[in-house]
Amino acid sequence: MALIVQKYGGTSVGNVDRIKNVAAKIKSFWDRGDKVVVVVSARSGVTNELIARAKSISPNPSEREMDMMLATGEQETIALTAMALHAIGVPAVSRTGAQAGIITDVCHSRAHISRLTGGDILDRLEEGKVVIVAGFQGISSDNEITTLGRGGSDLTAIALAAAIKADVCQIYTDVDGVYTADPRIVLKARKLQRICYEEMLEMASNGSKVMQSRSVEFAQKYGVTFEVRSSFNNQPGTIVKSFEKTMEDAVVSGVALDRTQTRVTVGDLPDTPAAIAAIFDALGEAAVSVDLIVKNVAKSAGAANLTFSVNTDQVQRAEKAIGEALKKIGSGTFRSSGEIAKVSIVGVGMTSHPGVAGTLFRALSEAGINSELVTTSEIKISVGVAPDKADDAVRAIHAAFGLDAPAAQ
Amino acid sequence: MALIVQKYGGTSVGNVDRIKNVAAKIKSFWDRGDKVVVVVSARSGVTNELIARAKSISPNPSEREMDMMLATGEQETIALTAMALHAIGVPAVSRTGAQAGIITDVCHSRAHISRLTGGDILDRLEEGKVVIVAGFQGISSDNEITTLGRGGSDLTAIALAAAIKADVCQIYTDVDGVYTADPRIVLKARKLQRICYEEMLEMASNGSKVMQSRSVEFAQKYGVTFEVRSSFNNQPGTIVKSFEKTMEDAVVSGVALDRTQTRVTVGDLPDTPAAIAAIFDALGEAAVSVDLIVKNVAKSAGAANLTFSVNTDQVQRAEKAIGEALKKIGSGTFRSSGEIAKVSIVGVGMTSHPGVAGTLFRALSEAGINSELVTTSEIKISVGVAPDKADDAVRAIHAAFGLDAPAAQ
Repeated sequence: MALIVQKYGGTSVGNVDRIKNVAAKIKSFWDRGDKVVVVVSARSGVTNELIARAKSISPNPSEREMDMMLATGEQETIALTAMALHAIGVPAVSRTGAQAGIITDVCHSRAHISRLTGGDILDRLEEGKVVIVAGFQGISSDNEITTLGRGGSDLTAIALAAAIKADVCQIYTDVDGVYTADPRIVLKARKLQRICYEEMLEMASNGSKVMQSRSVEFAQKYGVTFEVRSSFNNQPGTIVKSFEKTMEDAVVSGVALDRTQTRVTVGDLPDTPAAIAAIFDALGEAAVSVDLIVKNVAKSAGAANLTFSVNTDQVQRAEKAIGEALKKIGSGTFRSSGEIAKVSIVGVGMTSHPGVAGTLFRALSEAGINSELVTTSEIKISVGVAPDKADDAVRAIHAAFGLDAPAAQ
Repeated sequence: MALIVQKYGGTSVGNVDRIKNVAAKIKSFWDRGDKVVVVVSARSGVTNELIARAKSISPNPSEREMDMMLATGEQETIALTAMALHAIGVPAVSRTGAQAGIITDVCHSRAHISRLTGGDILDRLEEGKVVIVAGFQGISSDNEITTLGRGGSDLTAIALAAAIKADVCQIYTDVDGVYTADPRIVLKARKLQRICYEEMLEMASNGSKVMQSRSVEFAQKYGVTFEVRSSFNNQPGTIVKSFEKTMEDAVVSGVALDRTQTRVTVGDLPDTPAAIAAIFDALGEAAVSVDLIVKNVAKSAGAANLTFSVNTDQVQRAEKAIGEALKKIGSGTFRSSGEIAKVSIVGVGMTSHPGVAGTLFRALSEAGINSELVTTSEIKISVGVAPDKADDAVRAIHAAFGLDAPAAQ
């Protein structure tokens, strides 16, 4: 008997039959005496339909009214899920974000949770009921319906798990768990049994798009253990929790790939701290995330080149910001010089094991892949490679660190 | 400058273009300085879609969860309507039933309004905003989302008009107003400029399905003047308000037709008050509405026949109730003997004018139409006729009372 929060995404509740499957899965936990709180998203496609309808009325609809409209998607799903549970004999009751006491700030379309009371959830659980909560939405202290932005339903689940002190939070999705690499690229990728928050964050921010960083950070902050698992089978998934001593033996947990980076080069910059700072300040103010930074001092004395990568969809913003910064500095040129793929190895034990970087670069070298722009952190080393070499790089590195699954027997 | 509540039904906001039209109409009032509160229904079809989805999950879904789901229909429309107003430069803000302080009892799917605070509507109007309120829905004192049942959006509008002391409540619909008869039957039917609540109630319960009785009764109770008018043109509609002296000159305001009646005959009943009462008590307990009652004492002394009409969709319930009552009485037979159409003339001045019944029966006689089962009230005389004669009967009566519009010039 455990207190469990389960979250089912839009694909898992995409139509009536899938909602019935979800209900059957919930029942299997309820049958064995678990107390279950369920967080659901809108049916897949519904949110996009609603957005399209809004955009055909106004190209730039009010965020407050968008939230009012989008919140209906989850509200429909909670009712349907409760009905599906009733139909198989499981007492259940639905709760909107407001009814579940998910109190947010007033930043429409990207609200932050400021407080979570849980409403009467614990009382209903005590009565033997399953409680179905609308993900992605909350209510502000001035009674406005808000939404939490991308990945909001995961956040609802993890925040609820923290508030009611659940034993575990299960994030049901359309993948089996977190893998050592993208299984579509590396056939021998293995599902990880467990991973710590820091690794999960690096895997998430490096393109293994299982969950948004925000939810992982929230879980880390409040110590919520969660499991990423599939809603389409009954296999255990990947458990994400705090770093433990026993996890040290795994040096590299996985290989992540992010294809959406563009290389930007700023040249002929005065080689002064003030000039370098001016560039990065401008990028920061424009909310451009910068990674993989390399600074070269050019042969002509006193001039420096900066190369770094930015998310491809932020290139325009980056160019505008850099252009303005260079005007103030009074010299310098810049250009975006094509897309690059960022390949990263992630692992908590990395810094305490010598030779990790060596293994990485030897693997790339043996595969004949040039790397440029390297960055390292406590638990990560990232390299930029040509996009058409990215898959080969991931496979070579995955094998080199002994991550490949043993051949099938 | 007036304080106006406007209600637009599902057809009026059925798609994006129609929502834009509604916004333009609202703007025309706002432009001239009126304070406007708008009540909208779900887009036509949406409620049926939602119900179908629920029924495919559970044949008998929980009413509480149905309300949770159905309330999303209006919530989407209020947001889209607010966006459409913003797009043409009108400040507007949407409010769910809960936010508008529409407090109901806990009878899901048919809740009654117990209190209406209006929330912050007056403050928002004071700021120059149009306030868009979700019709059909409210919130119970224990924070449950409820719906008001059929005609609920009209009720929302009229109750809001009462709460904020609006100057007028405009019910926009797909008809021009209330006519002296159904214009599809009587080509010369005329739109009534005004009508009193009592007449409106009789017109409504007699098949001129412009509005549910419930909303009219609410308006009468709280003295809310309302106007039924078309959302597709700018013509004035029909104003419904309290009876006034000047309205006495109109003897008969209109002719109503209800095709959904079935004649039931109970024969060989003991001719005692107890036996008659037992039949009607049983029908009352089964919530069967009975009309057009005729009692004949049969030639065989001491036996009576009762003939009356019931709504066709209540026939099965009526048969069951009568069958059980006859068992207790210990004698009697019954049968439903086919559908009949109920034709009614409605008018406040009726009882003080002699000869009204005479005119009615002469008109039927001259048209060669047999009538059976007659009932009268203060403001109504109804007769049962064969369904295939109903249209002829309405036309003949309409002409006989001088209701036909003058021929076009």
